[in-house]
Amino acid sequence: MKVFGDFIGVNTSKRGDYIDITPKVKERVEKSGVRNGIVVLHEMHTTAALVIQEGDKDVHADTTNALNEIVPLSRQYRHCYEGVANATAHIKNQLLGSSIALPVIEGKIALGTWQRIFLVELFEGRRRRIAVSIIGE
Amino acid sequence: MKVFGDFIGVNTSKRGDYIDITPKVKERVEKSGVRNGIVVLHEMHTTAALVIQEGDKDVHADTTNALNEIVPLSRQYRHCYEGVANATAHIKNQLLGSSIALPVIEGKIALGTWQRIFLVELFEGRRRRIAVSIIGE
Amino acid sequence: MKVFGDFIGVNTSKRGDYIDITPKVKERVEKSGVRNGIVVLHEMHTTAALVIQEGDKDVHADTTNALNEIVPLSRQYRHCYEGVANATAHIKNQLLGSSIALPVIEGKIALGTWQRIFLVELFEGRRRRIAVSIIGE
Repeated sequence: MKVFGDFIGVNTSKRGDYIDITPKVKERVEKSGVRNGIVVLHEMHTTAALVIQEGDKDVHADTTNALNEIVPLSRQYRHCYEGVANATAHIKNQLLGSSIALPVIEGKIALGTWQRIFLVELFEGRRRRIAVSIIGE
Repeated sequence: MKVFGDFIGVNTSKRGDYIDITPKVKERVEKSGVRNGIVVLHEMHTTAALVIQEGDKDVHADTTNALNEIVPLSRQYRHCYEGVANATAHIKNQLLGSSIALPVIEGKIALGTWQRIFLVELFEGRRRRIAVSIIGE
Repeated sequence: MKVFGDFIGVNTSKRGDYIDITPKVKERVEKSGVRNGIVVLHEMHTTAALVIQEGDKDVHADTTNALNEIVPLSRQYRHCYEGVANATAHIKNQLLGSSIALPVIEGKIALGTWQRIFLVELFEGRRRRIAVSIIGE
């Protein structure tokens, strides 16, 4: 049984950025030597998120627009010493989630044909960090 | 320590379908021989989701209606070459999520009295696949 | 390789309560002896949720208000024999999610500076239970 731990760092430039971390996750799974097991990913921030979706800029823009309608800047928020966009980012983070667990089967992360793993920037350009644990044999 | 990997296939017939996969997940946990550990589930599509909820058709219908209000067909979307319902499905997928990790304790998946595991169809009737990894002893 | 399983119990007093379970989760990780691996958490109810967020009462109140706008009490719901607030709690549960998987690296749960783990009460004051599994070495 193998246990592998690491961190992935990415840079975002603005709200709505979808950063594809799939290659970096695959690289860690290969490095771990795990062919059957799981990979657990967790982005370590309260104003970003991890999602699995298609690598299509239109889907990403649609999602950003939808989130802006669901948690609009025009409402009143209490947590606003970093601005209203920051307040909405905290809420969007909870709707999208920050952790993902995925099966690794026969040497492959069990992603469907169209699925990629994305760090989603919900606030503003930042250095973002994702913790990775891989367990299996 | 045991590692078990498999896939579960289900058929959906229309948007809003909640397919109860709990018996199929329990079957895999039994087959794995794991009595203490975890089970990781991931549906391999960008227009479906995995949720844990009550096995009550009214809750499922309420959720489908709510999602239709949250991400309405009446808005403009960029990703619409497969229709507006498809665009909304991509967004709903990210709100509900596609992966779930659950403890297995003393031979039982740690689900509460009313909890069941569902594949939720967000687009249209399809063959859907869920990857399963179980680790423990 | 170690496998550790346990349950965490908490009391909530009203809708919108954010109960910080981080110390109880850390306690279990220490007790497990796992320094590298993962921790899987699952709240065992259909009208509560698990989220990771900042320990700031204003963020919590903003989120509760936002959820009340997203899934308003003023709409018609089918599942309402326990009242409209109960119907909305079932939907909010699916938007926030009930399970979280986190890496444990070098003896620490990989939480960012501002991240804490919360049980969120979506219905009314109750005894709530969270299942915990920790695997690693």
